[in-house]
Amino acid sequence: MQHTATPDSAGQGVAAPYLPTDRTVPTRSRDRASYDRELVHSILDEAYLCHLGFVRDGAPVVLPTLFGRMGERLYVHGSTGSRPLRAAKTTDPGLPVCLTVTHVDALVLARSAFHHSMNYRSVVVHGTAVTVTDPEELRLALDAIVDQVVPGRSQDSRPANGKELAATAVIRLDLNEVSAKVRTGGPNDEPEDGALPHWTGIVPLTRGYAPPVPADDLDPAIGVPDYLSAL
Amino acid sequence: MQHTATPDSAGQGVAAPYLPTDRTVPTRSRDRASYDRELVHSILDEAYLCHLGFVRDGAPVVLPTLFGRMGERLYVHGSTGSRPLRAAKTTDPGLPVCLTVTHVDALVLARSAFHHSMNYRSVVVHGTAVTVTDPEELRLALDAIVDQVVPGRSQDSRPANGKELAATAVIRLDLNEVSAKVRTGGPNDEPEDGALPHWTGIVPLTRGYAPPVPADDLDPAIGVPDYLSAL
Repeated sequence: MQHTATPDSAGQGVAAPYLPTDRTVPTRSRDRASYDRELVHSILDEAYLCHLGFVRDGAPVVLPTLFGRMGERLYVHGSTGSRPLRAAKTTDPGLPVCLTVTHVDALVLARSAFHHSMNYRSVVVHGTAVTVTDPEELRLALDAIVDQVVPGRSQDSRPANGKELAATAVIRLDLNEVSAKVRTGGPNDEPEDGALPHWTGIVPLTRGYAPPVPADDLDPAIGVPDYLSAL
Repeated sequence: MQHTATPDSAGQGVAAPYLPTDRTVPTRSRDRASYDRELVHSILDEAYLCHLGFVRDGAPVVLPTLFGRMGERLYVHGSTGSRPLRAAKTTDPGLPVCLTVTHVDALVLARSAFHHSMNYRSVVVHGTAVTVTDPEELRLALDAIVDQVVPGRSQDSRPANGKELAATAVIRLDLNEVSAKVRTGGPNDEPEDGALPHWTGIVPLTRGYAPPVPADDLDPAIGVPDYLSAL
């Protein structure tokens, strides 16, 4: 782990924030930016889908993909034949990437079109993705990706065999150059708009899971496991 | 509109699919890719948040942002001071971008870790974003972005005034180089894994809206409008 708890002046363990860089200081709404490690982790851990950006032939590419977090490292997996994973392997020292996770919590409807907004929590990670070659790290990373989607699931599925491992590439992205951005609260209308006849407020979004649907060929004796009921 | 309905042999209006390019043909799971115009539109129109990728100093940047669709054009807005919008204005012929929209519909839990997957629908748009300078197009684009979030809302809010318009930049991205990718159905386990004692199936995701929460200073005589109740 690159970043461990740093003792503060009172001697208690406190995780030091990420250090802001030119890339992680926004040009606007700076008050919404945060480098707090626990906030970043909590936003990442509420997600399993990220949008991974890389450059191909000078142009940007953004693909949705699953990820897993282990401490200060993020892992993304894919076919050994996929473009970014191939590029990470053949590029020295690795593939420059930007990994972004976003949760939208509410629509914010102001009286003016201009002040319409969203309540959201996002994390943007900049860095260089490198291919995981250590077999033990590879297995742990694959478990982390499965458990990011459904905590506990990796222990209730068949691990990858040799053939599957050979077909799978995993890249690692360290959490060094990282920022979170959070908006909360209601609309910020102009005071002179207060008397306009438009409804204003927020519309919270809901997210959840419907009951699990067993596969057609599932042995009926195998019930829904606790880790799924707990979702 | 660049792409209009093309009469088929029966004389009926049929929208021609997008033409695949090297960038929009995936290296794997090609059977999941589609260039169908109506499918692409439907995936885009179920969203208001996209992840916009661009290149800054040779490195990728991926930011979550609102967008609006008008026919075969997508619009993204932001502060005139924001990095991508500034770059779109100062780069000739515009800013190379990749705009991606993703809906996750279900978790797919196979007996093997390797065959875990997601049911999803995504759209990836490659192209060059240009700054909107025509005042009428700018107003229509801003309405489209508001209405992408809540259909009908642009008619029930104060339009941007001159000062607000001057602070707002809008970029346009034409739908030319576009693909959708869709996965549906259950897990695809290896036949030899059929007797393993692991639960297998899918967990559908749910998305919705909680009741609107009025702003503290809203005149109580202004009730929740129909277009919000209809969400």
